[in-house]
Amino acid sequence: MPFTHRLSPSNKIRLAEVPTSGHDFHQSRDKAEEEFKALRKRLAHLQNRLYASGKHRLLVLLQAMDAGGKDSTIRHVFKGVNPQGVQVHSFKTPSKEELSHDYLWRVHAAAPAAGTIGVFNRSHYEDVLVVRVEDLVPRSIWEKRYQHINDFERMLSDCGTTILKFFLHISKDEQKKRFQDRLSTFYKQWKFSVDDLRKRKQWDQYQEAFEDMLNNCTTDHAPWYVIPADQKWYRNLTISKTIVHALEDLDPEFPSVEEGIENVVIE
Amino acid sequence: MPFTHRLSPSNKIRLAEVPTSGHDFHQSRDKAEEEFKALRKRLAHLQNRLYASGKHRLLVLLQAMDAGGKDSTIRHVFKGVNPQGVQVHSFKTPSKEELSHDYLWRVHAAAPAAGTIGVFNRSHYEDVLVVRVEDLVPRSIWEKRYQHINDFERMLSDCGTTILKFFLHISKDEQKKRFQDRLSTFYKQWKFSVDDLRKRKQWDQYQEAFEDMLNNCTTDHAPWYVIPADQKWYRNLTISKTIVHALEDLDPEFPSVEEGIENVVIE
Repeated sequence: MPFTHRLSPSNKIRLAEVPTSGHDFHQSRDKAEEEFKALRKRLAHLQNRLYASGKHRLLVLLQAMDAGGKDSTIRHVFKGVNPQGVQVHSFKTPSKEELSHDYLWRVHAAAPAAGTIGVFNRSHYEDVLVVRVEDLVPRSIWEKRYQHINDFERMLSDCGTTILKFFLHISKDEQKKRFQDRLSTFYKQWKFSVDDLRKRKQWDQYQEAFEDMLNNCTTDHAPWYVIPADQKWYRNLTISKTIVHALEDLDPEFPSVEEGIENVVIE
Repeated sequence: MPFTHRLSPSNKIRLAEVPTSGHDFHQSRDKAEEEFKALRKRLAHLQNRLYASGKHRLLVLLQAMDAGGKDSTIRHVFKGVNPQGVQVHSFKTPSKEELSHDYLWRVHAAAPAAGTIGVFNRSHYEDVLVVRVEDLVPRSIWEKRYQHINDFERMLSDCGTTILKFFLHISKDEQKKRFQDRLSTFYKQWKFSVDDLRKRKQWDQYQEAFEDMLNNCTTDHAPWYVIPADQKWYRNLTISKTIVHALEDLDPEFPSVEEGIENVVIE
């Protein structure tokens, strides 16, 4: 942990064999929630240093099945972090203008600036997921995209962006529970759409598309993490820990002060 | 409170006569901090409804002298709010590309989308502040801008954006204290620049420029609030309260659910 869940370019996975439950990895929910709170404070501190140093960029990218917990992850993990240094981008169905460009255009425009954390709620990976399952472009088009994406992410990485990609892995049963919860909870109903049921019927096709995405786009510069996400407490803990580790590796420092500052007298 | 600090289009103010201390308005710091915590929770809740409803836009704009507390306000007031629904834009010295457009171009591009809160850390008002004091364009140019800005903000308001403009009003003594604090605190030193001293010498010119901005750009659709900001606890409380009031006035509702949702069975 957290590297337990990091994929390696040399080992292909079978998604059906990867656990969705955090109970296999952590014994105690209470202890996990305590750890998580401490990590959240640490994250706020590190983000402040990242912003002050103004050098590195961090990209946190989330993909999941419907009700996989993308919104909830963002809310929990980044709660308490100064919003000035975090930009969240939710990629929805592309607009007419976005469609008039290549599919990486809108994504590139949203890449994080120096000193900031960019969070992608969905991403360019939709172009090998929903686009593939719904047959919006032929195979000959979407299968080239894995390479484009690896190349694009290598360029970002070479230019100083650390990339963390999280696939929130839930079971089909867990999705059912969450849909039922949305249906029966007043302030969650708006998140449910009848179209979600149609997509649930395509569960297997989506899992296959996710599996190919994970296997084809895990590189040394931008590996995927497959997070067991049936339990929110384990999901939040693990993602938070991975981000904190990455920031500690960057070890951003407060910038050096201007010369002559020690002699300054304020009148 | 909070309307105590809202300017009115019909009453011109003299900035030197407006208090910078919150002690004149609130007796107890402890009580204020307690109130503030409750408001912060309320804000997180209302922002969630704003995001779900996807109808209204809220623009929160901050201007102040150096060390007036813009960054700190953003950090404190929006801590705990889901970063997915809040976009903070810090307007720095314009880039070459930005300068090749009119001065409202980059600001317009950053205006908040439906369902979100946009926070401007500095704004188009710099074009009647630093630009005026540093004599970057002649008076004949900058004095036309008050009208442009009022027109621009009326258009935003007519199209569904609620605009809250806060001037964080500090005393010259308080600025001195804060500069000294920055100089003597390791993790704040990077925020201090020798150029800050040059600008401090222009205190009176800046106060005059702020006064004209406040008097010329207070309209019914986008009034200025002059916040006594020497004490952070009063500043945070008042700004938070004003934002919560505005959101309660908008009263965003969870969207109505799709038809047929009551008969849904999830397989």
